[in-house]
Amino acid sequence: MKADEVPLQTPPRASRKTASIVIVNTGEGKGKSTAAFGTALRAVARGWKVCVIQFVKSNRWKVGEQETATRLGVEWWTIGDGFTWDSRDMKRTEAIAREAWRIARERIQSADYRLVVLDEITYPMSWGWIPTAEVVAVLASRPAALNVIATGRDAPQALIDLADTVTEMRNLKHAFDRGIRAMRGIDY
Amino acid sequence: MKADEVPLQTPPRASRKTASIVIVNTGEGKGKSTAAFGTALRAVARGWKVCVIQFVKSNRWKVGEQETATRLGVEWWTIGDGFTWDSRDMKRTEAIAREAWRIARERIQSADYRLVVLDEITYPMSWGWIPTAEVVAVLASRPAALNVIATGRDAPQALIDLADTVTEMRNLKHAFDRGIRAMRGIDY
Repeated sequence: MKADEVPLQTPPRASRKTASIVIVNTGEGKGKSTAAFGTALRAVARGWKVCVIQFVKSNRWKVGEQETATRLGVEWWTIGDGFTWDSRDMKRTEAIAREAWRIARERIQSADYRLVVLDEITYPMSWGWIPTAEVVAVLASRPAALNVIATGRDAPQALIDLADTVTEMRNLKHAFDRGIRAMRGIDY
Repeated sequence: MKADEVPLQTPPRASRKTASIVIVNTGEGKGKSTAAFGTALRAVARGWKVCVIQFVKSNRWKVGEQETATRLGVEWWTIGDGFTWDSRDMKRTEAIAREAWRIARERIQSADYRLVVLDEITYPMSWGWIPTAEVVAVLASRPAALNVIATGRDAPQALIDLADTVTEMRNLKHAFDRGIRAMRGIDY
């Protein structure tokens, strides 16, 4: 169907219900984490218990969405060590990522939540800091009603295979490429 | 740089500041509107005045994000007539879209806001209900501090040309394709 045609026919409807899904937002483009936070906002509006765990961002940098989400009752953990190029002790940075995964795994297995967001988890997975096979196994055997959103570039294939919905955010154009800095209120 | 290499070098930093940007989220995949709402959440956390205008969704269907955003002080207009295939009077549906644009234009030109989200505006633009040239002209001459996010599939080229940042959401995999229904709390 062409973009300029007004759709007149009801599209086919999906009929299966599922207790929960796993969503992956990957790709180089903007919106991976932001879409995950948008979904978290939607989930709390429905009365769900939601937990966000950030694997790279450090607690030294409070972002806008954290403030809002916390105010709405989202449990929010920022357990990263910041950008790897700022790390003065990579072993420690790696240990912090493992600790974030330990906490995430506990939250996932607790059956207390309806949505857990694993923000930027693909990076420590790709770097071999968190075993991909273990993450996939924990997600595959998660409590039936728990939805999970994982974000980050270069999502490992095993994670994609497990996921129900995978979106690749592609950069068609980016203000940054014209030298424009990230903007408070828009980018963080 | 390969995905499994830990980045050790500080990437080049952008240096230019800009008063505001125009963002377009397009493509067939999930997350276009959700990322826009995530940004709205970020913007209100920074104390910005934010307005969301939905061009397709009708007021008959209250979505979770609307409830949360309104509670946070976002001005939220749902002025669509619903899915076009449910329309019993396409002239009326078209008139409603024009009315949504009239309200959006007023909000944009008022200089009262720091962020205006034009959710699913690309559809009435593609269908010729709202003149693309006018939308682009209004965005190009917007108040200096006003950021705009436009969402929807098949963003018109003139809109892409005007935008600072354009992300294409690509569907790598979708639960819907396996017959799984949209889920309250996740999809709406």
